[in-house]
Amino acid sequence: MMTLTFASPPQNKSDLETGPAFTPRFDEKGLITAVVTDAGDGALLMVAHMNAEALALTLETGVAHYYSRSRRRLWKKGESSGNVQAVREIRTDCDQDAIWLKVSVAGHDATCHTGRRSCFYRTVGVDEGQAKLVITDDERHFDLKQVYAES
Amino acid sequence: MMTLTFASPPQNKSDLETGPAFTPRFDEKGLITAVVTDAGDGALLMVAHMNAEALALTLETGVAHYYSRSRRRLWKKGESSGNVQAVREIRTDCDQDAIWLKVSVAGHDATCHTGRRSCFYRTVGVDEGQAKLVITDDERHFDLKQVYAES
Repeated sequence: MMTLTFASPPQNKSDLETGPAFTPRFDEKGLITAVVTDAGDGALLMVAHMNAEALALTLETGVAHYYSRSRRRLWKKGESSGNVQAVREIRTDCDQDAIWLKVSVAGHDATCHTGRRSCFYRTVGVDEGQAKLVITDDERHFDLKQVYAES
Repeated sequence: MMTLTFASPPQNKSDLETGPAFTPRFDEKGLITAVVTDAGDGALLMVAHMNAEALALTLETGVAHYYSRSRRRLWKKGESSGNVQAVREIRTDCDQDAIWLKVSVAGHDATCHTGRRSCFYRTVGVDEGQAKLVITDDERHFDLKQVYAES
């Protein structure tokens, strides 16, 4: 059961930037952006969103929970794939509208639903006036059909 | 002058995840989340937002531009402080609704408007049932009054 609640952000900018209270600034949909990196080597793994419930559960359990905008529900990362994220540290930014999670990934050490370690597996470039993508990391850490069929 | 434009995202999920076209999924406000790390040591520096103009300018010039939600205008990072970001690499994630910029910061090597290197200078914890912040990095890279008075 979630017991942690968050106070409203202070009006005063100085309090927001230097005060001792964590007062996350959820957007009009009640969400805050979460950036997730590997606690070991710092690799950027994913960007997701949390509502107050997901953020409280993450702080209370030490296991990363998010809010799935596509499925419109609380989402314990790894609940299907086993790639659960143990949270080693949480930070917030100057205006408290973003969260940074440093995590250790269990299971296959894969965060992307495509089986890759990171969701950021493609590089953006410009080629003949067009914005193009090149796949930079194509290594799959698990077999999609097997993992998601079992869930 | 900005010449780069972005095609609409494909309906097909496979095209979005593996196709060669960069088709950023701007939200209903026309913005996309940008995560910014240091190209040298990988440190997370900031999270910001881009509209199509900022993203195109960033790709065309190699200098990071954002959209300031508070000032409601295009924002060349470092225009006041001198802490301009030279973009070394841009990546996008599986569903193309987030951007990752690896940058080299000029000026004072400070990204946060508070003078700190990173906007993520505080750690979140729980103390006696309350969500609390502790300042983890308090080193200032520039004198706020001097830098912003000159701009």
